[in-house]
Amino acid sequence: MPHGSVIPAIILIFSLFILKLCIASVASAGGGGNGINVWPKPRIMSWTTQPRANLLSPSFAISSPKHFYLSSAANRYLKLIKTEHHQPLVTPSLINITTSSSSALHTLFITVESLLTPLQHGVNETYTLSIPADASIANLTAHTVWGAMRGLETFSQLVWGKSNLLVASGLYVWDSPLFAHRGLMVDTSRNYYGVDDILRTIKAMSFNKMNVFHWHITDSHSFPLVLPSEPDLAAKGSYGHDMQYSPDDVKKIVEFGLTHGVRVLPEIDSPGHTGSWAEAYPEIVTCANKFWWPAESNWTNRLASEPGTGHLNPLNPKTYKILKNVINDVVNLFPEAFYHAGADEIIPGCWKADSTIQSFLSNGGTLSQLLEKFVGSTLPYIVFFNRTVVYWEDVLLDDNVNVRPSFLPKEHTILQTWNNGPNNTKRIIDAGYRAIVSSSEFYYLDCGHGDFLGNDSQYDQLQPSSSANNGGSWCGPFKTWQTIYDYDITYGLSEEEAKMVLGGEVALWSEQADPKVLDVRLWPRTSAMAETLWSGNRDEETGIKRYAQATDRLNEWRYRMVSRGVGAEPIQPLWCLRNPGMCNTVH
Amino acid sequence: MPHGSVIPAIILIFSLFILKLCIASVASAGGGGNGINVWPKPRIMSWTTQPRANLLSPSFAISSPKHFYLSSAANRYLKLIKTEHHQPLVTPSLINITTSSSSALHTLFITVESLLTPLQHGVNETYTLSIPADASIANLTAHTVWGAMRGLETFSQLVWGKSNLLVASGLYVWDSPLFAHRGLMVDTSRNYYGVDDILRTIKAMSFNKMNVFHWHITDSHSFPLVLPSEPDLAAKGSYGHDMQYSPDDVKKIVEFGLTHGVRVLPEIDSPGHTGSWAEAYPEIVTCANKFWWPAESNWTNRLASEPGTGHLNPLNPKTYKILKNVINDVVNLFPEAFYHAGADEIIPGCWKADSTIQSFLSNGGTLSQLLEKFVGSTLPYIVFFNRTVVYWEDVLLDDNVNVRPSFLPKEHTILQTWNNGPNNTKRIIDAGYRAIVSSSEFYYLDCGHGDFLGNDSQYDQLQPSSSANNGGSWCGPFKTWQTIYDYDITYGLSEEEAKMVLGGEVALWSEQADPKVLDVRLWPRTSAMAETLWSGNRDEETGIKRYAQATDRLNEWRYRMVSRGVGAEPIQPLWCLRNPGMCNTVH
Repeated sequence: MPHGSVIPAIILIFSLFILKLCIASVASAGGGGNGINVWPKPRIMSWTTQPRANLLSPSFAISSPKHFYLSSAANRYLKLIKTEHHQPLVTPSLINITTSSSSALHTLFITVESLLTPLQHGVNETYTLSIPADASIANLTAHTVWGAMRGLETFSQLVWGKSNLLVASGLYVWDSPLFAHRGLMVDTSRNYYGVDDILRTIKAMSFNKMNVFHWHITDSHSFPLVLPSEPDLAAKGSYGHDMQYSPDDVKKIVEFGLTHGVRVLPEIDSPGHTGSWAEAYPEIVTCANKFWWPAESNWTNRLASEPGTGHLNPLNPKTYKILKNVINDVVNLFPEAFYHAGADEIIPGCWKADSTIQSFLSNGGTLSQLLEKFVGSTLPYIVFFNRTVVYWEDVLLDDNVNVRPSFLPKEHTILQTWNNGPNNTKRIIDAGYRAIVSSSEFYYLDCGHGDFLGNDSQYDQLQPSSSANNGGSWCGPFKTWQTIYDYDITYGLSEEEAKMVLGGEVALWSEQADPKVLDVRLWPRTSAMAETLWSGNRDEETGIKRYAQATDRLNEWRYRMVSRGVGAEPIQPLWCLRNPGMCNTVH
Repeated sequence: MPHGSVIPAIILIFSLFILKLCIASVASAGGGGNGINVWPKPRIMSWTTQPRANLLSPSFAISSPKHFYLSSAANRYLKLIKTEHHQPLVTPSLINITTSSSSALHTLFITVESLLTPLQHGVNETYTLSIPADASIANLTAHTVWGAMRGLETFSQLVWGKSNLLVASGLYVWDSPLFAHRGLMVDTSRNYYGVDDILRTIKAMSFNKMNVFHWHITDSHSFPLVLPSEPDLAAKGSYGHDMQYSPDDVKKIVEFGLTHGVRVLPEIDSPGHTGSWAEAYPEIVTCANKFWWPAESNWTNRLASEPGTGHLNPLNPKTYKILKNVINDVVNLFPEAFYHAGADEIIPGCWKADSTIQSFLSNGGTLSQLLEKFVGSTLPYIVFFNRTVVYWEDVLLDDNVNVRPSFLPKEHTILQTWNNGPNNTKRIIDAGYRAIVSSSEFYYLDCGHGDFLGNDSQYDQLQPSSSANNGGSWCGPFKTWQTIYDYDITYGLSEEEAKMVLGGEVALWSEQADPKVLDVRLWPRTSAMAETLWSGNRDEETGIKRYAQATDRLNEWRYRMVSRGVGAEPIQPLWCLRNPGMCNTVH
C-alpha cells in the first residue's frame, strides 16, 4: 500500500474537524500530548524514535506461552484488538504514520518468567513492552502471567484505526504498579446485581489494571449467596429465587476474574449487618426486623445506623455452628487468600435488645468483650483455612465496641479504613496493621445523591437541600473523579509506614444503586483511582499533581470504555475533547 | 374460573415473601395504602365499594373515538396493558379479588367532548375514569383527546398481574392538573442525544402525565439541527454528520410527542450561547473560539461563564438575515405555539471583544441597548408567526445587560426563571409577566456531580470536595427527588399572582450528561416534579406535605418505569419496599 493512503481515510472519518483538531492539538499545553495514551498511565513510556505508528498486519497474532488463563486472555485481547477499531476523539498528532506493509507489526510475542505464580496479593505485575519501529515483532515480557495481562491491556490501547489498524511504534514501556491492592467494592445485598453486571464490572476493572473485586455479598437487607451447607440463608434471606448467586454463579465469577487478573475477595459481614440471616435463623440474630431508630430514643440508642437491623448473637453457640458452615462454604467457593469478615458498625442498642446479652452485661460483661468473644471464636477458624482476615477498621478503632489488638494477630489481619480520611489510616499503621484505604470522604462512590430515608422533615422546609447537610446525605457531596484522583492514600506517613498501606478500594454501597446505575456510578471515577494507585497522581519529574493533564486523557478513555461496553458517565462536553485545553481553568 | 384461583398464583409468584408482605402492609402507616397507586397521584381517586379488583377480560378492548392521535394512543395503551404484566413489589392488600369471568372488564369506553381541540398550552386535560365493580364496561370521559390520553395512562397503572390480569374496580377518578405547563428541558448541544433517546424520554414523560418537552437544541458547543435554509449551521457547527437532527428526525419527534400528548418546544438560544454558529458564519459571532476566562482577567471580564464562547453580533445586519432564516425554518418544523428564544447570560466581555461594538459603546451606547436592538429586531419576527416567545429571565432581570419591559410585550412574552429560587419568580410576576419555573436550586437535574473544568487547583488540596463548594459545582449539591418534590413553585405569591405561574420544568444541562446517563439523571426525579405540578405535594385534606407517603409510591413507580424501558435510578434498597414504613425516619 503506498505511503499516505491512510491519511485520506482518516480525514474522511473526521470530516470537517480534522484540521481544527490538528491545530488545536499542537496548541494544547498539558493536554493529551500526541494523543497516544494509555490509562492508567504507565510508569515509563518512551519513544525510541520520533513518535510513529505502523500498520497492524491483518494477520497480526499474539504468541503466548500456553497457560490456562493467559492463553484465554491473549485470545480475548486478540479479538478486542481486531474488532475494536477505536477512533480517537483527539486524532493522534505529531506522529509519523507509516502504512508500508513491510513495517507492519505481525506478532506480539509474550515471554513470562514464571508461569506458575498464582494470582494473589503482592504478585509481581511488572511488564515491559517493546514495539520496535522497524521490526515486525513486538515483545511483551513479564515475571508472571498476571503482569503479562497488564501488558496486553496496554498494547490494546496502543492500537486504533477504522479500516486499517495502526499501532504506536518505536515505543518502550516499563510498567509496574505502585500499590499491590487496587480494588473496587460492590454491595450486592441492599440491591441485587445480576451475574452479568458483575462480570462486566470485572472486565472493566481489567481495562483499568485493577486487581481486586471486593464483593460485599451479604448484609441485613438480603442474603443472596446460596451456600451448600446452609441453603436456608439464601432461600429465606434473599430477595427471591431470581436474586441469588448459586455456587455455579460464584465459580463463573471467580474464573472470569482469573482470566482477567482480578481476584474476587468475598465479604460475609458479621456480627453486625446480619438482619437477613434472621429469616432462616431468628434465634441467632438480635434485634432483627425492628424499626431501626425507635421514636423517642436518641441516636445512641438506635438499633442500626440505617434501616435494616440485626446482629449475630455472640453468646449463642448456634451462631458459631452456622457461621462456621458459612465460612467453610465460602473458602471452598473462593480460592482467594483474603477473607473479609466485616465487623463494622456494632450498634450497642441491637445487642442490648437481647435478654441473654442483657444478663451478660448486668453481670459486669461489656460489649467489647462480646465482640472479642465473637472475633476470638471466628478469626482462628478462618485463619485455619490459610486465609488472611480483612476487617473494617471499626473492629479496632470504634469508640464504643472494639477488641484488643491481641485478638487480631497482625500477620493474619488487615484493616480497611473508611472513616476520618488519612487520620485513621495512620492509626491503623501506628497500631501495627496493614491497611486498605476506602476513605468515605474520597472513595465512596454512592455518596452525594441525597438520603434514602422516607419521612425526613428537613424536606418540609422550602430550602434547597442545603450545603450544610450535603443534600441530605451523611457522606455527601458526590466524590468527583478529581477528588478521587487527587487523594494521596499514604498522606502523612513515613516511607516505612507507607509500605503498610496495601492499596485502596473505591466502594459502591447500594442503598441508592442497582444495575441501572452501576456503570455510571463506577466509571470513569474508578478509573481515576486506578491510575492513582498504579502510577500515582503526580508527574514523576516535577512532583506536580497531574490531574490537569489527566482530564483530557480520562475523557478520551471514558469514550473508549463506552465503546468497549462499559456505560461510563461523561465528564465534559464532547467539545472539550475536540478543543483541548479550552475547558481548563487557569485561575 | 372459581373464586380464589388467582390467589395461589400470586403466592407462587412472590414465593416466600407474601405472608411477610401482607403483614407488613397492614402494619404500614402512611405508606402505599392498599398498594393500588397511580403516579402522579390523581386529584380524586375514590372507591365506590370496598377496594376490589376484577379480571381484565382476555378479550379486553378500548373503544376510542376515531382520532389520528388518540386512536394511536389507545392502541399503544391496549398493547401496554396486555403485555406489561406488572407485578407490584408491594402486593395490593386489603382488596377483594374477584376472578369470576362474569365480572371481568371487557371494554374501556372513551368519550371525548371536543375532538378538534389541538394540543397547546392550557388545553383542558381533565378526565374522569369510572370502573364499576359489577359491570363489564369502564368509562373514560374527557373534554379533549389530550385529557383522554391522561386517563388512559391512569387506567394502565390500575392493571397488574402475571398470568391473569387484574384491574382495580369499584373505582372513580376525577383528575385535572394544577399546572398547565409540566415540562422537562434537555440540552442536546453540549453533548448529543440520539433520536431514540429523545423518543424514550417523551414516552417516559407521558407515563408521568407531563406535557412539554423543552428542547434546548443549540448552544455554543454544537449546532445539531439541520435547517433547510441554513444547512451550513449544522454541517459545520454540529459534532459530525452522525450527530445531527434532520428535518425528518424533527418531524418524527414532533409526531411522537403528539401521539403522547407532549408538546415539543424548541429553543434556539441567542444572542448568547452561539459559538457553534461561528463555524458557518464567523462574521456574525463575537469572541468565538476564545479561551473562556483569560488568565490575569477577573470574573467580570470573562468571555463566557463556562468554556464555549460566542455571542451573535446585534450590530451586524447579516446576523438578522441568518437568524430570520433560522426562525423561519424552526416555526415550519415545530407546530408548537411557544418559541423559546433563549437570551440568557449575555456576557459583557464577549460583546466588548468586537471592534464595531467597541465603537458603539465608545459613542455612548450601552450593552443593554445592544440587547434591545437584538430583541427588538427578532421578537416581532417570531410573534409574526403567531408564536409566544419564551425567554430566560435574564433578558429582563440580569443586573448588567437587560431590556426595558417595553421591548417585551406581556401578551407575547413568557419568562423562565432559573436563579434565586422563589424570589425571581416573584420579580417576574411583579413585572407583569407569566412565568415558567426552573429554579436551579431545585430543578436542575445535572447539578451535584462536581465541576467539569480541567486544571482546577481546588483539587490539589488533600481535602474532600468540601461542602462549602458543594463538590466543586456552582449549583451543587445534587437535587434529590425529595428536594424537587417539596418545592412550591408559587411560594410567596398571592392566589392571583400564582395564576401567572404557568408551571415548571426540570432541566438537564449536558456538560456532564449524555445518553449514557440520560435516564438515571431524569428519572424518577422528574416524576417527583410531575406529581407536584399535577396534583400537588400536600395532602388535600390535611395540608401536610405528602412526601413521606410518596416515598413508597415513587419507589414502586420507579420499578414500573424500569419494566417499561425507562432506566430510572433506584431510590432505596428493595428491602424498603418489601418492608413498608421501615425505612422512614421519625425524628
